[in-house]
Parts: sequence; C-alpha cells; structure tokens
Amino acid sequence: MPFEYIPPLLRPSSGKIVLLVMDGLGGLPTEAGGPTELEAAATPNMDRLASEGMLGQITPIRPGITPGSGPAHLALFGYDPLEYEIGRGVLESVGVGLQVGRGDVAARGNFCTLDSEGNISDRRAGRIPTEEAIPLVESLKTINIPGVKTEVRHVKEYRFAVVMRGESLNPDIEDTDPQQVGIPPLPAVARSPAAEQTAQLFNQWMKQAREVLAGQPQANGMTLRGFATDPNLPTFSDSYGLKGAAISVYPMYKGVASLVGMQVINFTGETPGDEFAALADTWSDFDFFFIHIKKTDSKGEDGDFYGKAEIIESVDKALPRLLDLGPQVLVITGDHSTPAKLRTHSWHPVPFLLWAPDTVRPDNQERFGERACANGGLGNFPAVQTIPLALAHAGRLEKFGA
Amino acid sequence: MPFEYIPPLLRPSSGKIVLLVMDGLGGLPTEAGGPTELEAAATPNMDRLASEGMLGQITPIRPGITPGSGPAHLALFGYDPLEYEIGRGVLESVGVGLQVGRGDVAARGNFCTLDSEGNISDRRAGRIPTEEAIPLVESLKTINIPGVKTEVRHVKEYRFAVVMRGESLNPDIEDTDPQQVGIPPLPAVARSPAAEQTAQLFNQWMKQAREVLAGQPQANGMTLRGFATDPNLPTFSDSYGLKGAAISVYPMYKGVASLVGMQVINFTGETPGDEFAALADTWSDFDFFFIHIKKTDSKGEDGDFYGKAEIIESVDKALPRLLDLGPQVLVITGDHSTPAKLRTHSWHPVPFLLWAPDTVRPDNQERFGERACANGGLGNFPAVQTIPLALAHAGRLEKFGA
Repeated sequence: MPFEYIPPLLRPSSGKIVLLVMDGLGGLPTEAGGPTELEAAATPNMDRLASEGMLGQITPIRPGITPGSGPAHLALFGYDPLEYEIGRGVLESVGVGLQVGRGDVAARGNFCTLDSEGNISDRRAGRIPTEEAIPLVESLKTINIPGVKTEVRHVKEYRFAVVMRGESLNPDIEDTDPQQVGIPPLPAVARSPAAEQTAQLFNQWMKQAREVLAGQPQANGMTLRGFATDPNLPTFSDSYGLKGAAISVYPMYKGVASLVGMQVINFTGETPGDEFAALADTWSDFDFFFIHIKKTDSKGEDGDFYGKAEIIESVDKALPRLLDLGPQVLVITGDHSTPAKLRTHSWHPVPFLLWAPDTVRPDNQERFGERACANGGLGNFPAVQTIPLALAHAGRLEKFGA
Repeated sequence: MPFEYIPPLLRPSSGKIVLLVMDGLGGLPTEAGGPTELEAAATPNMDRLASEGMLGQITPIRPGITPGSGPAHLALFGYDPLEYEIGRGVLESVGVGLQVGRGDVAARGNFCTLDSEGNISDRRAGRIPTEEAIPLVESLKTINIPGVKTEVRHVKEYRFAVVMRGESLNPDIEDTDPQQVGIPPLPAVARSPAAEQTAQLFNQWMKQAREVLAGQPQANGMTLRGFATDPNLPTFSDSYGLKGAAISVYPMYKGVASLVGMQVINFTGETPGDEFAALADTWSDFDFFFIHIKKTDSKGEDGDFYGKAEIIESVDKALPRLLDLGPQVLVITGDHSTPAKLRTHSWHPVPFLLWAPDTVRPDNQERFGERACANGGLGNFPAVQTIPLALAHAGRLEKFGA
C-alpha cells in the first residue's frame, strides 16, 4: 500500500478529482531572462485557476533524477518508483498496449543480425526502420507453442515486445542478449527451478522465430531481455478508495494506469478537446480521472519551444469544457520536465497547480508558470504526495486521531 | 552507498563540479529589519550568479539541529550523518590532521588533575591554556609501546587526540573518563573479547603517559574517550563516479574529505585567492572540487558581524578566477549557519546558490542572501541532496527507467 495511513481514513464523498497531466510540462528559458514554454504560452484559463488556486513544484522521483515515463507516472499516482519497480519487459509491453496480467511473462525483444555461423554480427539488426520491422513482427504472430498463448507487438525500429500467457509461468529468466557480437544469442536460462519450464517455452518460441526469420538480410535473429510479470501493485481502489479512469491517446500511459487498476476509456480523436469529451461522457461513472496529454513532451523532445507552447495553449482553450463538469479538485501538472532547450526528459521539478474551489488556500500567484510555481504556497514536494492532497481537497479523508 | 539508485545511473561527462563552502555562512540580522552578514556584504559576482542561477536553503542534518563541522560536511557530501556515524575519536583526530586508516584506533584525550591518592580532582586540568598543553603533548610523543605505533596531536587547551596503529586493533572499548571527580580514571575496558588486546595496549600507553606527566601541577593525568576506527565510508568515487579533490586551509575539513576518498590538495597560502589558484593548478586532474573557506565561521564565532561580511566579500572578489576555469556546475553554500549575533554554530538553514549555465532554471532572485534564498526556486531541501543535484546539472546521470 503506498500510504499505509490512508485506507483507514477514507470516507465516501461525491467529490470528483481530475488529474490533468501534460507530459514533460516543465521547461527552461532558451535565453537569459526569457520565458519557459509554459510562461510563453497564453493560458488565460490556467492563469485564472492559478490565481484562485495554489501553485507548487513537484519532484518526480528524487532531486536530480530524470525519470522515464513509466516511473514518472507511477510517482504521480502515489507509488514511489524506488519502492515499486516494474520490470522492463512489462513497461515495454504496456507501453505498446499489450496487457500483462497476473502470471503472464513479458519480455523486450530486439531483432539482431546473425552471420552464417549463427553468431551475432549486429545486435540491433542495422537499426532497421519501423516500416521494415512491422511485417516481421506480424510473421512472429504465427508462432504457436502448445500450452501457452503468445502475443507480439512492434515497439520501434528493431524493438518489439512479447507476452506469454499460460499456467505456472515464472519470469525469473536471464537475458538472452550476450551484450557482444561474434557469439550466438544465449538460450533463455532460468535463474531458479520454478522458471525452468518457462525458459524452455521461450526457447521453443525463439527456435520457431529464427525459422520464421530465416532468409531475412538483416533481422534474421532476435534476443529477449527484461523478463518480468505483472508487478501486482496495490490498486488505486484499495489504496485510495477511488474508482479511477484513464483517458490517454498513447498506449504507454493507458498501460501504466491499468497496472494500478484504473479503467482505460476508449474514445475517438486525439485532441485535448476529444479527451475532455471522453471525460464528459464518462463523468458519472468514476471518482477519479487521469487525463494524459502527450504532445507537450513530443514537442519538447523535438526542441520545438513554440510548438510546445502551442500545445499548452490548445489545452488551455479546451479547458472550459472540463471545468463545466464541476470537478471538486483539479490538478494540472506534468509527469516530468522536457525542456525544448534540452530536447529530452530532465530532472527539473515540475509546475503544479491545485484548484479546489471550496477548500484551496490561495497564495498570491496570478499565472501558471515555472517562476510562479517556484514561489507557490505548496512549495516543493514529492510527486507521490499528489493523490493524498487531492483526496483531502475532495473531502475523502477523515481526521487522523482524536 | 548514500543513494543506492545513483551508481546504476552514472555516465561519464567532462562537466566539472565545484562545491564552494563558506563555513558557517548562514547569519542573522543584528537589528530588526537589518541585513544578515551575507546580505550586508557587497557581492557583485555572487549576485550575478544568483540572478542567472537558482537559490534555495539547505538543512544540514534535520530541522532544529545545530551541526558540528564533521556531520555538516558529511551531509554536504551526501552522507546522512544520522546514518553514517563517525566515531568522535576519528573526528577529533582527522580534525587536527591525524590520518585514521582502516584498522587504526583513534581516541579523544583530556588532560586532568589527579590528587595525591590518584583520584581526579579536575576533569579538565584547570582548562590549561594551549601554550602550556602543547609541550605536554610533545612529551607524550616519546611513549613507546612495543608492537604498535602511536601518534598524538594537540587539539585545544586540555584536549588532544591519539591514534594507535598496528595489527588486529579493535575500538570496542569503554571511555576511561568516569565523568566525576574523587575517583581515579578508569582503565580501558574492552566491551567485547576482540578488543581485549587493544584495551591492554591503551592501558600500557596511559601508564607510561602518567609517568611522563608526573610532577605536572595541573595536567598530571589524562582520560581517553570515543575510541573509534575508520568508518569505512563508501567512497565519493563509488557513490558518485567522481574523482574529487579537497582544497582547504584547515586540517579538519581535509580530514573529513579524505574519509570519503577525496584527494587532499597541498598548496601554499591561505586566502581565497590562494585556494582558487590551487583549484586552477589541479583543474585538469579531477571532476569535483570541494573548496573550504574557514574564516566566515571564525568571524561568526567571534561575534564579528562586519568581519564575517568582509570575508564573504574577499571570496566574491576572488571568484572571477574560479569562474574563468569554466565549471559546468558551481554550488556556493555553507556547511551550517554561524550567526555573529549568536557567536556559535546554529540550526538555521543555509543559503544555497546553484549555478549551471546550460541547464539551470532561473527563479527571479537577483541577490545572494538569506531572504532571497528563502524565496528561491530550489526551496528548502536537505543538504544531502546537494551532490545528486550537481551530478544532474553536470550531465552525469542517465534517465531512471523507460
């Protein structure tokens, strides 16, 4: 349980909580004294919420640590990523929308090039492009291993994910990537007796896969890494008494939300407006809504400062539709920073806005931006404290002690 | 390891980190509405760095806790002093430049006065002044115990440090100070069988010491306390992947730095300019430089408000020499506060300036001072987070998770 002291305090409430995550929201000025992406964006709606609400900054994992998307979201959901580790195979799989249930075993796969002796000559198969890899992944879907079901999905370039489902599977298996060229891929080797059978099943799968790939000029072999199973996280419902929904265009974020037991909402379209429409459609069915906006991060990774600001503006423009629903608590933040200046995720703290019309204590800040958040009344705090704060403002927590 | 999650994330980088510590930097106004020592000092260079960089405040150990110099520096280096205890005998010894290696046993010594029956009549030998104690410590250096080597060094007034080096030594020994007068000093008593032999060696040493001191009017006896050995701290190199150098005029700070594996730089002179010259001389040989300025603390302990401000100004004047070297990350802070008003170390948080031209997120603060730091974007945070933050800004940490 992420916070042992919370379940005994939970009480019912009709107050709904919305966690609006703009991926990679935090930014940096590109010139001395200049604005960040968020500060450069015209955000009249968020600015009003900022002046009515309270600002702060969150640290996703620990000071100085740059988070990947999986751990950053786990932290926002209240699960300390240093305490709740999710295997790489599971993250890769849920990242492309492959469910990993209790007892399933997931792994990351790399296509590689084997020479005529069966030794690896290129560990990444010449980094074959996505359009070449997709049909190869399709061909791997034809593999049939008696007694289990396997699902394969393409990730990017030479990477794919594979999930095996069946009885008594166990992920305690060594990587088959020898991390060097000139020798063959390793067989799947169990690290404990309980994983022997699963290792053999993966060896059968790899044998068939090599037959399927035989004759390919580059991707004629593969290695598997990061064998892992469902991390069996305490659910959102048990941890916080919340019936949670996830609204996201990208599978990775749906996947992480589903690992903590949120229900993934299907909807059409991919704009912030489409996501808020999905929110409106499901408003009466859930207590908590996680809404994920991807493109702030993508523009940041592209180094597109103004593109990122425009995405933020598009979210701001669509915001009245969300506000019309009357959330009791709205948190607007990011999972981490992705400054366009750095073109990558960073360790900088993330702007945080808490709006709760009935209970928030305002703090004299008038705009939503990094400098305002640095002076906000919530101060700097760990991202894992987001949900407990939201629960309080939603009237969902009893007093602790007499 | 201070941060278990850091070593797996380390990556090489050419970015150099400078940690400039003005001892006892934090201060207090001496009159209502007045400036602190740092605010009273003219510091144009630090003010520029503050406006380009980011400010905050660090808590050395825990809120309300006034640190000694040893723990305060350990915390700055990332080693929580509540987790990594260093025996008092070791701190006293390294504080006066006595090395304590693996297997050595160090203790703190007090001269005391014994009456004609051998009972203690004054536990501090009338607090004899330093100039009287130094020749007595010299005479203790003549003691010879077969099979081991002992080194003795004067500390202050009636206090000295002793280190024993040899085979199979063990520090698990009770203090010999009975903490009361009218009874004799206690013998060294082992708390466990493994320390029996060492206790006997210290008893032989004390017997010879009493013979050497016989006839002294005040300091004719001694007690030993705080038996301890090298704390075997994880090294700076293992913990952070940094090759660290320590530049300090005073032995205490060289000692603590050497306990975490930094290399102590020898140089001549004792001004900030001399220390920065030593920095320039060794710039290409290390990744990380700890530079210690002592006199801010000394002036604070003297109650000399303007004297402390002048020392800060002298550091500021010399700063361009440091900046010319092009550090990727510069942290300017103190190990603790020593407000001239209080004439002693205090528990107040310590001003903190982080400057990293490529990656810092500025926070609208224009000056380096306590009030500006209290409003800085880094907020209030534990001193142990200093090195992880610096590593991030130096480009020395990979992303955590996918």
